[in-house]
Amino acid sequence: MARTIDWDGDAVVIIDQTALPETFRTLRLETVDELIEAIRRLAVRGAPALGAAGALGVALSARRHGTDSESALAAVRAEAERLAHARPTAVNLRYGVERALAALPQGADAVLTDALAVLDEDERVNRAASRHAAELLLRRCPPRPLRVLTHCNTGRLATVAWGTALGTVRHLHADGRIDQVLVDETRPLLQGSRLTAWELADEGIPHRVLPDGAAAAAMARGMVDCVVVGADRVAANGDTANKIGTYGLAVAAAHHDIPFVVVATESTLDRSLPDGGGIVIEERAAEEVTQLAGVPVAPEGSAVFNPAFDVTPVALLTAVVTENGVFATGRGT
Amino acid sequence: MARTIDWDGDAVVIIDQTALPETFRTLRLETVDELIEAIRRLAVRGAPALGAAGALGVALSARRHGTDSESALAAVRAEAERLAHARPTAVNLRYGVERALAALPQGADAVLTDALAVLDEDERVNRAASRHAAELLLRRCPPRPLRVLTHCNTGRLATVAWGTALGTVRHLHADGRIDQVLVDETRPLLQGSRLTAWELADEGIPHRVLPDGAAAAAMARGMVDCVVVGADRVAANGDTANKIGTYGLAVAAAHHDIPFVVVATESTLDRSLPDGGGIVIEERAAEEVTQLAGVPVAPEGSAVFNPAFDVTPVALLTAVVTENGVFATGRGT
Repeated sequence: MARTIDWDGDAVVIIDQTALPETFRTLRLETVDELIEAIRRLAVRGAPALGAAGALGVALSARRHGTDSESALAAVRAEAERLAHARPTAVNLRYGVERALAALPQGADAVLTDALAVLDEDERVNRAASRHAAELLLRRCPPRPLRVLTHCNTGRLATVAWGTALGTVRHLHADGRIDQVLVDETRPLLQGSRLTAWELADEGIPHRVLPDGAAAAAMARGMVDCVVVGADRVAANGDTANKIGTYGLAVAAAHHDIPFVVVATESTLDRSLPDGGGIVIEERAAEEVTQLAGVPVAPEGSAVFNPAFDVTPVALLTAVVTENGVFATGRGT
Repeated sequence: MARTIDWDGDAVVIIDQTALPETFRTLRLETVDELIEAIRRLAVRGAPALGAAGALGVALSARRHGTDSESALAAVRAEAERLAHARPTAVNLRYGVERALAALPQGADAVLTDALAVLDEDERVNRAASRHAAELLLRRCPPRPLRVLTHCNTGRLATVAWGTALGTVRHLHADGRIDQVLVDETRPLLQGSRLTAWELADEGIPHRVLPDGAAAAAMARGMVDCVVVGADRVAANGDTANKIGTYGLAVAAAHHDIPFVVVATESTLDRSLPDGGGIVIEERAAEEVTQLAGVPVAPEGSAVFNPAFDVTPVALLTAVVTENGVFATGRGT
């Protein structure tokens, strides 16, 4: 199975997520500028995958500029800084950049070696974090195949190869404990219907896609045993920034006393922030809301409120889980 | 200003809401079958407008079949019954049909007269109901221009000529009390971004469109002073069926202690139902979710959960208001 992001010997290769579900194609990115452009238009996205992108981008830059003069090192560091700012909310992007930059004094090959280590680690920590989350859910949910609701895409397309929240679903499915996955379509960019549904179909895991606005009604009808989502940045107290819509889901799940688990990796934690109040939320272009597939769905020139993420206070969450186990707990614990 | 649905002397004329916001065009419907088809594909929609459609449809049928034999009357009644079932949740449709049918013994002209009376009444009761709602909100909200959040379309396009929840916004705007309207795009059919934004732009009322999933985050950021929505069926206790997504909004508004008002007309009340548990919820086609403007946004054959409406218990609402004033009250009263 192709990795979502990988190194082909000379360039970064990514699965182009803007083309799914219609077309599966890869893109070859030879420069940091090409990589930044791919990150900005979400051809590669998902907090863990952005960590890999950050590390590989520094490797690209180090090979291009070399590492044998102060001016070369300065050029690499400047490109790395631009790369780290390509998106403001996902802390993993900077984490990957910093990991690879640490090897810069040892030369371009060392940078690449460390970047590839970030990729290898990603699958390992994703498997571990999602295993912890699956075990937590099995303890908290009724002893029957589960109806699990998820939001956005947190599967192999959001990571290098396994997934966080969707990795949890994969573990549960392998254990025979999935009845059905309810997939929020996740407007505006539809990562749920485009990407998560594609992954679940690919693996034969039963699922239904629903408009984001139908999730609370599904809970009220008793169709949801638990909710599991990923994270883009987690503050020291467990407050969690994740795809827009997560907060409303968490409020509804708390109202219905439904377990709500965030699955993240340690690289998504930002211990420098005491709580979620300090998390910068990216606002994205109006066209993501006013057009779909190039077709206008709102009057031309409509003003828009289009934050990419929201922040859910830990008190609304059952737990935040990483590869090291439970990082933070909220309600019902 | 053209009525959303009207009679041109020989046929029903509607504004084709599937073509907005790109194209403003009207459709001329000469038979009950054409009218049913237009209702099913939502070329005409909105509970009050469906009441008008029900009444005018019976008038069409009575003129076509005549009313001077038992077999003619039976044919009209059979078409009226099919029309009343064109959509299951909106009680107004049946209300309009029954209103017009009551005049059937007096002949086709009497049926048309009564149907046209339904249209005339609609604007009057909408103005009255939305005036009551505006006054309630002015009492409940801070004394400044308001940031009002709304869902779906409840304006003149959902009624014959004025609007319920959006009529409330129009009253508030005329009083200089609107700062900004936040318009939920309202997936899957985007009645908010396509229709409500179009109406607000047409009247110069400041507004921003947001993905449905961003509404709770907007509340958390303090961007919402109140929520005002319409209704498709209201039970005797005030439980309210409205566009899918309303329930989640109400849960979030209650969590943030934000006033939440339902504006309906007496014809939307269903006193035969003690509470919302008995309201039939229409499930619509998967393609509404899996395609947009003909473009696939989910893998082919994806299963879907696509209820057109949800039911909000009155306990989560501030009040349900009709042309006669407050019909039911819930929290915070």
